[in-house]
Amino acid sequence: MTKPIEVRNPRTGKYDYVIIPPPPKLLAQQCNRIRRAQVSWQQLGLEGRIEALQQWKQAILSGRAQLTEALINDTGRLSISVLEIDSFLSSIDRWCGLAPQLLQESAKNTAIPFISLQQTSVPYPLVGVISPWNFPLLLSTIDTIPALLAGCAVIVKPSEIAPRFVAPLMSTLNTVPKLRDILTFVEGAGQTGAALIENVDLICFTGSVETGHRVADAAARNFIPAYLELGGKDPAIVLESANLDLATSAILWGAVVNTGQSCLSIERIYVAESIFEQFYHQLVTKAHRLQLAYPTIERGEIGPIISENQAAIINEHLQDAVSKGAVIHCGGKVEELGGGWWCRPTVLTEVNHSMQVMTEETFGPIMPVMAFSTVEEAVQLTNDSIYGLSAAVFAEPVELALEVAQQIDVGAISINDAALTAIMHEGEKNAFKFSGLGGSRMGPAALKRFMRKKAFLIKTNSTNDPWWFNHAE
Amino acid sequence: MTKPIEVRNPRTGKYDYVIIPPPPKLLAQQCNRIRRAQVSWQQLGLEGRIEALQQWKQAILSGRAQLTEALINDTGRLSISVLEIDSFLSSIDRWCGLAPQLLQESAKNTAIPFISLQQTSVPYPLVGVISPWNFPLLLSTIDTIPALLAGCAVIVKPSEIAPRFVAPLMSTLNTVPKLRDILTFVEGAGQTGAALIENVDLICFTGSVETGHRVADAAARNFIPAYLELGGKDPAIVLESANLDLATSAILWGAVVNTGQSCLSIERIYVAESIFEQFYHQLVTKAHRLQLAYPTIERGEIGPIISENQAAIINEHLQDAVSKGAVIHCGGKVEELGGGWWCRPTVLTEVNHSMQVMTEETFGPIMPVMAFSTVEEAVQLTNDSIYGLSAAVFAEPVELALEVAQQIDVGAISINDAALTAIMHEGEKNAFKFSGLGGSRMGPAALKRFMRKKAFLIKTNSTNDPWWFNHAE
Repeated sequence: MTKPIEVRNPRTGKYDYVIIPPPPKLLAQQCNRIRRAQVSWQQLGLEGRIEALQQWKQAILSGRAQLTEALINDTGRLSISVLEIDSFLSSIDRWCGLAPQLLQESAKNTAIPFISLQQTSVPYPLVGVISPWNFPLLLSTIDTIPALLAGCAVIVKPSEIAPRFVAPLMSTLNTVPKLRDILTFVEGAGQTGAALIENVDLICFTGSVETGHRVADAAARNFIPAYLELGGKDPAIVLESANLDLATSAILWGAVVNTGQSCLSIERIYVAESIFEQFYHQLVTKAHRLQLAYPTIERGEIGPIISENQAAIINEHLQDAVSKGAVIHCGGKVEELGGGWWCRPTVLTEVNHSMQVMTEETFGPIMPVMAFSTVEEAVQLTNDSIYGLSAAVFAEPVELALEVAQQIDVGAISINDAALTAIMHEGEKNAFKFSGLGGSRMGPAALKRFMRKKAFLIKTNSTNDPWWFNHAE
Repeated sequence: MTKPIEVRNPRTGKYDYVIIPPPPKLLAQQCNRIRRAQVSWQQLGLEGRIEALQQWKQAILSGRAQLTEALINDTGRLSISVLEIDSFLSSIDRWCGLAPQLLQESAKNTAIPFISLQQTSVPYPLVGVISPWNFPLLLSTIDTIPALLAGCAVIVKPSEIAPRFVAPLMSTLNTVPKLRDILTFVEGAGQTGAALIENVDLICFTGSVETGHRVADAAARNFIPAYLELGGKDPAIVLESANLDLATSAILWGAVVNTGQSCLSIERIYVAESIFEQFYHQLVTKAHRLQLAYPTIERGEIGPIISENQAAIINEHLQDAVSKGAVIHCGGKVEELGGGWWCRPTVLTEVNHSMQVMTEETFGPIMPVMAFSTVEEAVQLTNDSIYGLSAAVFAEPVELALEVAQQIDVGAISINDAALTAIMHEGEKNAFKFSGLGGSRMGPAALKRFMRKKAFLIKTNSTNDPWWFNHAE
């Protein structure tokens, strides 16, 4: 049996929403149903699939008010909820535009004169997506859209911490029967996620390293591909030559946007010692100006901490740092306001790698700043991490920044800005170390990883001898 | 502690060779050593790596006699040992020719005017290869060569059943110091393979489904990519319109070459009922003419069964089939000759999917032939398998064959010939079902799967505002 799950509101702290996970047997039936429907979805062809997605987009535009409201209640924030919907809608257009070229296939010449090669790709029938609470809509659809265009059916289990958006999203989906038959969202927590993996042909997971390991194990046991996008502890390196005003603005935003609740948040900052003081003064000045979005949601830049667990982790990291000698220059603690958990942008100095705040994912608006004396030291500190998601380098000229970037063991590096992958999805990148496993979520690979390649090898000469006869002589 | 392992000679049945697996600690040290040396190998650049591989090729040409002799003792066969070395040498040339283009990278335009994208790829430092006994040299090097060109260090553990080729191969390797430092072969059985996985950054495994599952589990636990190439039960479909002479010749060779000890052996044959009798008569006539390579290795086409375990499995499948009503038309049993195990090409009819010989990997020169009445039935029988490696379709015109091929759930399909992937490595293909997991071993993907993609995203406008400022307004 499965129990209802109470959902907490991040602004009020009240448990004001309930989700009801499907019993495992029902989930299996759901999966079977959409897996069967996938055959028609694939046969529909790319044009038909694009049409269905565009219809969905129109339905979302019509139901936008309800979706926005649900996302606001899920996350306690306003402008990012609006942005999530915008980004989601534009990702539909982006993929619909890219897919025709990516799915084009043609006969190829081969080096062997009597064999001709035709390549084709076929979708994995049923893709599972398990997504986190920090960008509930975006991260539940980032893999879903390309998988749908590839011709897969998709079943999504969003996080139980921010599930309110599912109901209005399903309403929009119900207006597009072709899509509704092969795409569904299920409510539930870890147990439902685990059951989902048992019923799909490929799993995409975005979330913590800890759960990522369990997903990898389950996928191996089920002998299905797993694409894992896990945590990060993204560093920023600021060289002496950096444009300081730009660096402090970009790093501040890269660290506190969405209250730091992003896998590609800047979570540690290494600054050349010659500009260290100037840097953190400027950073503190700018950080200090930012306001909480409280008591009204319309004001301020910093929303509530969505997950109560995460609030405890942020506090733990801060206390650990201070107990080991770190100095807090602004912000500095998680506080309760009106039932929600809040944290002002926090700048720390006197930090080192014995502190959790420099080594573990904090997922809050926390900016520990550390000085380095040589570029080698900066690179060594940067790579001294179990994570390898992304990074930022600030330096002039760009060539110097690129030289440093080459030495960093992460998948994406922003030069003279932070988290550019958040708006630029063309660059293929793989996660390093514990930050992930499997194909690139960005660039052309993002769509292609949902398909298997088939090769047709055709004997084209007219002799009755198989190739082996000529080869063996 | 690790015990020496006695190795059986497939022609004499005598245990005439010994391998000594490294203790786990020594293996870990070896891995660390070549992992450290990988940095120089990567820095050497592609030209330098190509030069080293070409030097190795020359050394192999010089040491060819010793290598051939060892392979003959490993496998009990002559012409295929010669062919293995030829194919290995030409794969070095092929990859050295392809790599420059595959590793080329360039700046790309992006849809966002103020961001420029540069892509680069970096090799996984240390690749592990675990390979089987059926083509000892070829299958221990098929992933190794592209991995080396990608810039990886490689540690290979060949099968303990056919390990004699390792010593002469290492001798050739020792003449190329740059390569010797980052490529090594270790002797051992399952325990050594398991220990190897603990020490590498990526694992390639070729072998049984059973062991493949264990490799997948271990890779997931270690959070490294696993590329698995496992078993097959490759079907051939012969439509009424097929060129019968061609079909019987190709299928015969596809089924008995290397005594059927190949993952892409034809192991089940579905023939249109209108030509069924004609087909199996012709197949039996041709099969009957083939000779065992016994008592001398120079005569005959059919070598000994290399693995004693496999001989028992072949016998089991034949007995199971006969007990359930199958009729043997030629061959039909595994016999002992001079201490080795041998099996003549065997044609069976009156077979069905209740028999192991139609559903489990036999890995012997066994050709069960079954009639079908409709193409739908043929496709249904073909897909009624836990395997999905490759297949063959015989029909005229080619378009009809392709139409059938489209419906088969396997990665590579030969049209009017068998096992064309054995000579044509340009076509990308993924294994379906239990036949494998991970990227394509063939085509450009074969090399690219040894590299991680890095994206450099460069802010190119000259404002001091990070992207977010413009994006949020």
